[in-house]
Amino acid sequence: MSSPLDLLVLGNAIVDVIARTDDGFLAAQNVAKGAMQLIDEERAEALFAVMGPATIVSGGSGANTAVGAALLGAKTGFIGKVRNDELGGLFAHDLKATGVSFSVPAATDGPATARCFVLVTPDGERTMNTYLGACQGLNPADVEEAVVASARVVYLEGYLWDPPAAKEAFRKAVKIAHGAGNAVALTLSDAFCVGRYREEFLDLIRDGSIDILFANIGELQSLYETDDPDAALKALRDERNGRGLHLLALVTRSSEGAAVVKGGEIRTVPASPIDELVDSTGAGDLFAAGFLAGHARGLDHVTSARLGALAAAEVIQHIGARPQSDLVKLARSRGIL
Amino acid sequence: MSSPLDLLVLGNAIVDVIARTDDGFLAAQNVAKGAMQLIDEERAEALFAVMGPATIVSGGSGANTAVGAALLGAKTGFIGKVRNDELGGLFAHDLKATGVSFSVPAATDGPATARCFVLVTPDGERTMNTYLGACQGLNPADVEEAVVASARVVYLEGYLWDPPAAKEAFRKAVKIAHGAGNAVALTLSDAFCVGRYREEFLDLIRDGSIDILFANIGELQSLYETDDPDAALKALRDERNGRGLHLLALVTRSSEGAAVVKGGEIRTVPASPIDELVDSTGAGDLFAAGFLAGHARGLDHVTSARLGALAAAEVIQHIGARPQSDLVKLARSRGIL
Repeated sequence: MSSPLDLLVLGNAIVDVIARTDDGFLAAQNVAKGAMQLIDEERAEALFAVMGPATIVSGGSGANTAVGAALLGAKTGFIGKVRNDELGGLFAHDLKATGVSFSVPAATDGPATARCFVLVTPDGERTMNTYLGACQGLNPADVEEAVVASARVVYLEGYLWDPPAAKEAFRKAVKIAHGAGNAVALTLSDAFCVGRYREEFLDLIRDGSIDILFANIGELQSLYETDDPDAALKALRDERNGRGLHLLALVTRSSEGAAVVKGGEIRTVPASPIDELVDSTGAGDLFAAGFLAGHARGLDHVTSARLGALAAAEVIQHIGARPQSDLVKLARSRGIL
Repeated sequence: MSSPLDLLVLGNAIVDVIARTDDGFLAAQNVAKGAMQLIDEERAEALFAVMGPATIVSGGSGANTAVGAALLGAKTGFIGKVRNDELGGLFAHDLKATGVSFSVPAATDGPATARCFVLVTPDGERTMNTYLGACQGLNPADVEEAVVASARVVYLEGYLWDPPAAKEAFRKAVKIAHGAGNAVALTLSDAFCVGRYREEFLDLIRDGSIDILFANIGELQSLYETDDPDAALKALRDERNGRGLHLLALVTRSSEGAAVVKGGEIRTVPASPIDELVDSTGAGDLFAAGFLAGHARGLDHVTSARLGALAAAEVIQHIGARPQSDLVKLARSRGIL
């Protein structure tokens, strides 16, 4: 249980229920295109009843990152909560089948395994409706000290701020990681999620809880409440944490590539070319996976970001947020690994 | 419930659990490549535990045909049995979401909804391991006389010979359909399935139970126990049923296209071109869907077979046995509709 990990991910354990749709359906269902919206069980049933034929694959932002990093060779673990039902079994199976260690016991009662209804429009944009279900049972007892202390990087989802007990699990992990001298990474997850927890996320950045930040430009603009992407990037560049240090931050900008923000500098990495945008679900998750796997291999930040861009490009060219190609082979063919 | 249908399908109600694999895994698991093998619950759990990350989509040979025909404009119904569990909910949802009427009540106890572990090798071939679960509960009471009598074509899976009570449901449907003056179609399903029920299938063909036969060449060779595909085709061409009539038969030959066998003649239709063979699951099912939808539209047999070839080509270019493109649009772009 406490053999060293390159990466330990805490996240909501979610199975994606994916359907193709069109903008008219999103409008009729009154959902914000491109965002993640929390829904209750009743709404989940109503939405499922009217959506199109579905494909079910494991998801969860942090879990997608864990799988991508493991496929790129990082020794990775995951902490999250499922129920002992069919979809929970799928989620656990898929982590183990990709080499991610996962030993949090499934809940034996209470709500079902979380599911995210992912609506994919013809432009490849995904709109997410999440029923948190069993994720609400994640709590500090699920965070084992020895496991967390063994991980060089602990990666946390901003989405963990949604289920109340998960926030305490998050804080416990930060304390253990820093006590062991390891790094803590945070993804801002979603612009609306940032809207819900803006002050708390800024506090985490400024009080030294976070060493590495992942965000897309929309989330960053939400964090700094600005319409100007460059202003948001500059504000981030100038952040210093409680120890007077600059953060390492990775900011993705879709087809415009990514920015590596460190030590008062902003360096850009281009997006990896794609043939066709099929489903953007998991783009940010896989960028983080590639970056963190590169980091674990001792690559420099820019090369790690290129690996992130490559993993993101792979995942947006098919349905679902888990890689379908051999990422190591792909990276080798591009001269990144 | 008894508004007229173009097509009513009786089949095993199965959800596909699909994973990519390699030939070494098939050998290690001792499964016959390309075939459908029945497994029990214990074996299902053991196989799932060792297979790779999975994608879950609705499947079932006949249900795939029903969905394809409905997407091509045929008014279609389905009869099959699920359990009231998560995967059963997915199966029923996906039929309804594609316009297939489905009103057989889900079992409220007994085995879980059937699942087929589909192992896809890099060559695009699929190897199937089916746990029949709730399908074993399909019985004659699920076959409503008014619904069957309303359908111009009743289409039956050879696989229905596996769950014992389903065979009786099958026979009841044949009797009602012929009593109402409608046509009965049968698919031979799988070469090993033909091996299990060869004499009974030949009896069905020869005693006049079947008006339209679908088979791939391997199934036909199994039926006539010959290594020679042309000999099998000729044997089929010369069959006459109990009323002295030739069958209408459609025989698929993968990349070699399909044969339309009728009235002592064999006409061939080329395979529809593809960019890449990704997953051959559903090829035969969608060929039947296209043919039957063309038949329902009043197209001649050869044109209907071309529509079948087109639908088959669509489904083998992605993971899963349900169409992901607009088949009508595709057929129009090729001048078939």
